[in-house]
Amino acid sequence: MKVVKFGGSSVASGAQLKKVTEILESDPERTVVVVSAPGKRTADDEKVTDLLIQLGESVDDNHMNGDIYEKVRNRFKEIIDDLDLSDRTLSEITNKIDEGIAMIRGGAANGIDALKACGEDGTALILSAFLSERKHNASYVHPKEAGIFLKDEPGGALVLEESFAHLYELRKKEGILVIPGFFGYTKEGKLITFSRGGSDITGSIVAAGVKADLYENFTDVDSVYCVNPALVKNPKEMKNLTYREMRELSYAGFSVFHDEALIPAFKEKIPVCIKNTNNPEAPGTMIVAEREDTCGDVVGIASDDGFVTIYVSKYLMNREIGFGRRLLHILEDEEVSFEHAPSGIDDMSIILREDVLPSHKEETVVKRIREELQVDTVEIERNMAMIMIVGEGMNQRVGVASKATRAFEKAGVNLEMINQGSSEVSMMFGIHEDGMEKSVQELYKMYFS
Amino acid sequence: MKVVKFGGSSVASGAQLKKVTEILESDPERTVVVVSAPGKRTADDEKVTDLLIQLGESVDDNHMNGDIYEKVRNRFKEIIDDLDLSDRTLSEITNKIDEGIAMIRGGAANGIDALKACGEDGTALILSAFLSERKHNASYVHPKEAGIFLKDEPGGALVLEESFAHLYELRKKEGILVIPGFFGYTKEGKLITFSRGGSDITGSIVAAGVKADLYENFTDVDSVYCVNPALVKNPKEMKNLTYREMRELSYAGFSVFHDEALIPAFKEKIPVCIKNTNNPEAPGTMIVAEREDTCGDVVGIASDDGFVTIYVSKYLMNREIGFGRRLLHILEDEEVSFEHAPSGIDDMSIILREDVLPSHKEETVVKRIREELQVDTVEIERNMAMIMIVGEGMNQRVGVASKATRAFEKAGVNLEMINQGSSEVSMMFGIHEDGMEKSVQELYKMYFS
Repeated sequence: MKVVKFGGSSVASGAQLKKVTEILESDPERTVVVVSAPGKRTADDEKVTDLLIQLGESVDDNHMNGDIYEKVRNRFKEIIDDLDLSDRTLSEITNKIDEGIAMIRGGAANGIDALKACGEDGTALILSAFLSERKHNASYVHPKEAGIFLKDEPGGALVLEESFAHLYELRKKEGILVIPGFFGYTKEGKLITFSRGGSDITGSIVAAGVKADLYENFTDVDSVYCVNPALVKNPKEMKNLTYREMRELSYAGFSVFHDEALIPAFKEKIPVCIKNTNNPEAPGTMIVAEREDTCGDVVGIASDDGFVTIYVSKYLMNREIGFGRRLLHILEDEEVSFEHAPSGIDDMSIILREDVLPSHKEETVVKRIREELQVDTVEIERNMAMIMIVGEGMNQRVGVASKATRAFEKAGVNLEMINQGSSEVSMMFGIHEDGMEKSVQELYKMYFS
Repeated sequence: MKVVKFGGSSVASGAQLKKVTEILESDPERTVVVVSAPGKRTADDEKVTDLLIQLGESVDDNHMNGDIYEKVRNRFKEIIDDLDLSDRTLSEITNKIDEGIAMIRGGAANGIDALKACGEDGTALILSAFLSERKHNASYVHPKEAGIFLKDEPGGALVLEESFAHLYELRKKEGILVIPGFFGYTKEGKLITFSRGGSDITGSIVAAGVKADLYENFTDVDSVYCVNPALVKNPKEMKNLTYREMRELSYAGFSVFHDEALIPAFKEKIPVCIKNTNNPEAPGTMIVAEREDTCGDVVGIASDDGFVTIYVSKYLMNREIGFGRRLLHILEDEEVSFEHAPSGIDDMSIILREDVLPSHKEETVVKRIREELQVDTVEIERNMAMIMIVGEGMNQRVGVASKATRAFEKAGVNLEMINQGSSEVSMMFGIHEDGMEKSVQELYKMYFS
């Protein structure tokens, strides 16, 4: 049994949904489908979810933006017409949109969530109708019916453990099941959505719940590249990755999707395959728990900017038992989550993302470190970039670090920081943002050319 | 005003003490002298302090080891005879030894300290008598009279802050003052000693107290080498070092002397010069607060073995606010002081010295980490070596890291760990012990040949 998830561009039009159908028809194991809301058809197109958010924001007691309402309706109508489906599906969709609008007018806190969810929901209604037209035993499965129960948290909804047992029950159903991504329900029956990109989370939760043999994530690229293609032209594709490699790569700006969406699937050790709806014959990128050919090669280079470092020095720091702990406690106290904290003898650096340290917090944190820890120096450095080279077994191999540092030297970039050895599958480098592009290019040449 | 300290080999014989006298006579600024106990004259000789410890251990109510007593007495007698001094000095010394023995017999807790102190005390009595014979205005100054007050702590005696003000009063005295190193007094008037090598501490405290223009530490090498001469033949000498460089070098096994002995002098920003009693014309190694020519060169390579790493991994560790702090808290709780704690996304390594983690503590620490932090892995790796390359400004220079990693590659040694960027003046590498010698040799070639 395979769980198949299709992203926004894969369901952006009738033509795309026909490809989706062919993909499903080509493999009878593909019996559970999770879909996103229709995405962009062209670069300057609008995503249905964005339109729904605009629509929701325009709603007040008496008015709303009728143009946007029509835009949304037309996107669905076009798809339905392309697929020669009846108007009944369109009515179902518009009814749900109208319900969402009414909820907002009624003052429901989750009204905007209900409206936003209409994108994925509409896709699922259309796809299941189209599959039925093609004489498949297909059914639309509502997330509430599937038992996807969520907890409302400040950072975005979190799945409740019991959902997995509910989802396992789906195995009893026959035919193809089509589930809209992006939303679920609280125990009180209130619809809530994940954070953006939430269809990936639904796909991963469903794959984990039904204990799929494979979770296929269809997008619009043939596979994951070993380096950001915005920095290196036509980079190599990655055929095979481990979860740990994926996680380290995602961490430093690997943007195919957010690695955390895959956590439920990872936890159940379900292999994940990233594939292209527009070229389903391409093998894609497989992400697995363990890889056989871990010969110490570097599999990928990730890079991201927008980091900041806090450098703290205090003479005789390492004789002071508890210093590191007290420093980290101040950060915890100020709700500042840090990424890394390499320490020297009398020095410690904290690396964090710029967005967790706005200037008012910076002031408090610096003040507390200075006063409570009686340090000699606290310095803040912004505009830092982190570059990560990743590969299972890499750190057991002589010369990997040497290649990397040579690449930075060739790029003429000074290494502000090297952190190797704390992770078994990666090596991290901190540099000034302006050297990032050149460094990544030289690293790519060093390991992949 | 210069404070001059002479180590054990510099005062091991009458001939050596004549050299000391000439050194003092060659510079009228050298007015405060701190001396060690007579050390070894040849490789198979015995140090007077070691003899005194053996003697003390042999003392009981009725007996003691008379042969050792005679050995100690003869060492002093030989020196006194060589210098043509009267027997009065010998009687003064033997009286103090007899007093120490009586204190041990009387059950005094500090009896052994009093006996041990006779080595330095004897040297000071002899040197001041000899200087007086040579018509200098010289006087022996007892540490109690100098006002060196100490606090008895489990790890060794610590100097009390008020001592510095007392020592400043010595500036009023005329002539050459000779102070025995290694011991001081509690506020209750009880003699106590520093840990071994304590004459260096006395020298540094006295230099800080009198606010010397220079603290000269005379030993038996022309200067400090840039690398351990046991690993590299005839290495280059270091002419100029900063305190920070010295501290980082000392940390990883740079054994000329323990950097902590210099802390009192460092705190007062007093320049320190390491010189050779047997070749006083050589310029020696200057250790200063700031160096002008910090052009980013590597000034030294230090290395030491006997390290152990605790590797901890937990999926999603970096999302868990407070994880690092709680891990360090467990170590603090178990009174395990760590050296470094580099962290990755889902991993953290703790590096410590083997002696702070005996196997019974290892078991407790591993158990607590596993149970209290619910981690996926805890692994202990012993037999690690740390290599440190040190130089002010080094980390601002492109290519320094590249040279280092190339050296390890040439040595065929795998880098288990790199920690760069937390300290501004050093780069640290962790490897298996068996690759240490070869790595240090390749690093030396890379930076110094």
